Amino acid sequence: MADLLVVGSVALDSVETPFGKVREALGGSATYFSYSASFFTQVRLVATVGEDFPESHLRLLEDRGVDIGGLQASKGRTFRWTGEYGYDLNEAKTLETQLNVFAEFRPVLGDGLGRVPYLFLANIDPELQLDVLRQMKERPRLVALDTMNFWIQGKRDALRQVLAEVDVVTINDGEARQLASEPNLIRAARAIAAMGPRTVVVKRGEYGALLMTEGALFFVPAYPLDSVYDPTGAGDTFAGGFMGYLAAQDRVDAAAMRRAIVYGSVMASFTVEDFSLKRLTRLKPAEIAERYTAFHELIRVEP
Amino acid sequence: MADLLVVGSVALDSVETPFGKVREALGGSATYFSYSASFFTQVRLVATVGEDFPESHLRLLEDRGVDIGGLQASKGRTFRWTGEYGYDLNEAKTLETQLNVFAEFRPVLGDGLGRVPYLFLANIDPELQLDVLRQMKERPRLVALDTMNFWIQGKRDALRQVLAEVDVVTINDGEARQLASEPNLIRAARAIAAMGPRTVVVKRGEYGALLMTEGALFFVPAYPLDSVYDPTGAGDTFAGGFMGYLAAQDRVDAAAMRRAIVYGSVMASFTVEDFSLKRLTRLKPAEIAERYTAFHELIRVEP
Repeated sequence: MADLLVVGSVALDSVETPFGKVREALGGSATYFSYSASFFTQVRLVATVGEDFPESHLRLLEDRGVDIGGLQASKGRTFRWTGEYGYDLNEAKTLETQLNVFAEFRPVLGDGLGRVPYLFLANIDPELQLDVLRQMKERPRLVALDTMNFWIQGKRDALRQVLAEVDVVTINDGEARQLASEPNLIRAARAIAAMGPRTVVVKRGEYGALLMTEGALFFVPAYPLDSVYDPTGAGDTFAGGFMGYLAAQDRVDAAAMRRAIVYGSVMASFTVEDFSLKRLTRLKPAEIAERYTAFHELIRVEP
Repeated sequence: MADLLVVGSVALDSVETPFGKVREALGGSATYFSYSASFFTQVRLVATVGEDFPESHLRLLEDRGVDIGGLQASKGRTFRWTGEYGYDLNEAKTLETQLNVFAEFRPVLGDGLGRVPYLFLANIDPELQLDVLRQMKERPRLVALDTMNFWIQGKRDALRQVLAEVDVVTINDGEARQLASEPNLIRAARAIAAMGPRTVVVKRGEYGALLMTEGALFFVPAYPLDSVYDPTGAGDTFAGGFMGYLAAQDRVDAAAMRRAIVYGSVMASFTVEDFSLKRLTRLKPAEIAERYTAFHELIRVEP
């Protein structure tokens, strides 16, 4: 079992879907990622929050054993995001983004974090992602990176630079096509792999995920749910299950990657069953094992 | 190995996609279905064509061993369809439909067809589908039906009546939601199963297919292709591989159904690689076996 470091955002999310809403609920890429990964391995978090960040949210992470020693408490207000979803839960409409203290975020890797063997660079400015890589005292065994359309458009050069140095990229369907300037998904994944990462993970929302590693492809569907309440954080929860499993096994081979993709899908399937981290806070390890088995049943075919 | 009967359309299709076009090429649901299924089992076709139908098209089907004894040559012109696709190849835009002799089509099951054990009712008027069922002298071992939005809207009662009598329904993603009046796909499939068919196959285009049989779910992705030229006929080719495999094995259990879904996906993946039936006419059985193996590799994960 190896340690896993995540650098990303901690936020207060206000979200409305056709099935309900929450105000200033716990959110952020590093939050979803670390909470999810904590079911598999020791997670260490580097992020920033403002003075207004509720103590109870910190306790939620600590209760799961997440090391929040790297969480910087800054002067000012916490990052806030307000968004809504229609019946097509695949796409969020952002109503408001208040960066607040996140605008000045400069990740600092303190005591021992520079030698953590598994690293996830959540969706932040690629210049900061590069800066984190520079702070590592040893090349981690596996570095994964997530990104989005905002950086693909606005910071393409920095993004290409950091992409050249990572092992895995996790990216949405549409953003993969955008990054590669290629409408065909398979060609897009191949083009992204040619930018550096030997493993490309494409997140396809309700259509599941695609893994391309060492040139071979693996598809997994999304777990079929009767009701999806809030897809916020599904991608980061997925990445948390994926990286958490790999770090727990301390394996980065193709067979482990396939199982990791299934664990990522399992974790994401729980997140969307309720708002914010509500479902994850009720989650039992036995439920993860059960859904992992159910996943195999979903895709099993005797040759 | 059991015989397989298909009742549907034979057409002349004019299709344009961003990658090319064809004029008055061989098309129609029964054509794609029977050509595809002919790689697995003995297929018998019931359909209608006009006096203008090219002899060479008939020979294509005969060369594959398809029994075209039930193909009615009628006074008038053959059914014609003109459509185009944009870069989103998931949805065709119909530019023109000339029903011609298809408007007066009354399927007649001649010599021995009333006792064929596997029956596919391709996408035609549900009243005709019912009429074919009434002509069967013995209840087939497996009856499958395909339908579309046009009948869901315009002939819902007749459709519900025939649905109550079939074993399998194959239907598009969006049409499944429409038929069930239910946006959630899993609930929609369950609602359709409650209308009669114990097996529901949902076709999801580039996202693959979903099988619900005896309450259990199975997902298969679409085969990843670098280039898709023309998706016309993919659904019927899929159904041909699915039913062809089941008839060839003479099995209708859940494990066989899963393999059949993969064979359907294999056949559909070839069809879209070229216009009309062009790719299928070049297809070798060894290629089917090869792609079937490759499919297993795509979805294989060790527990």
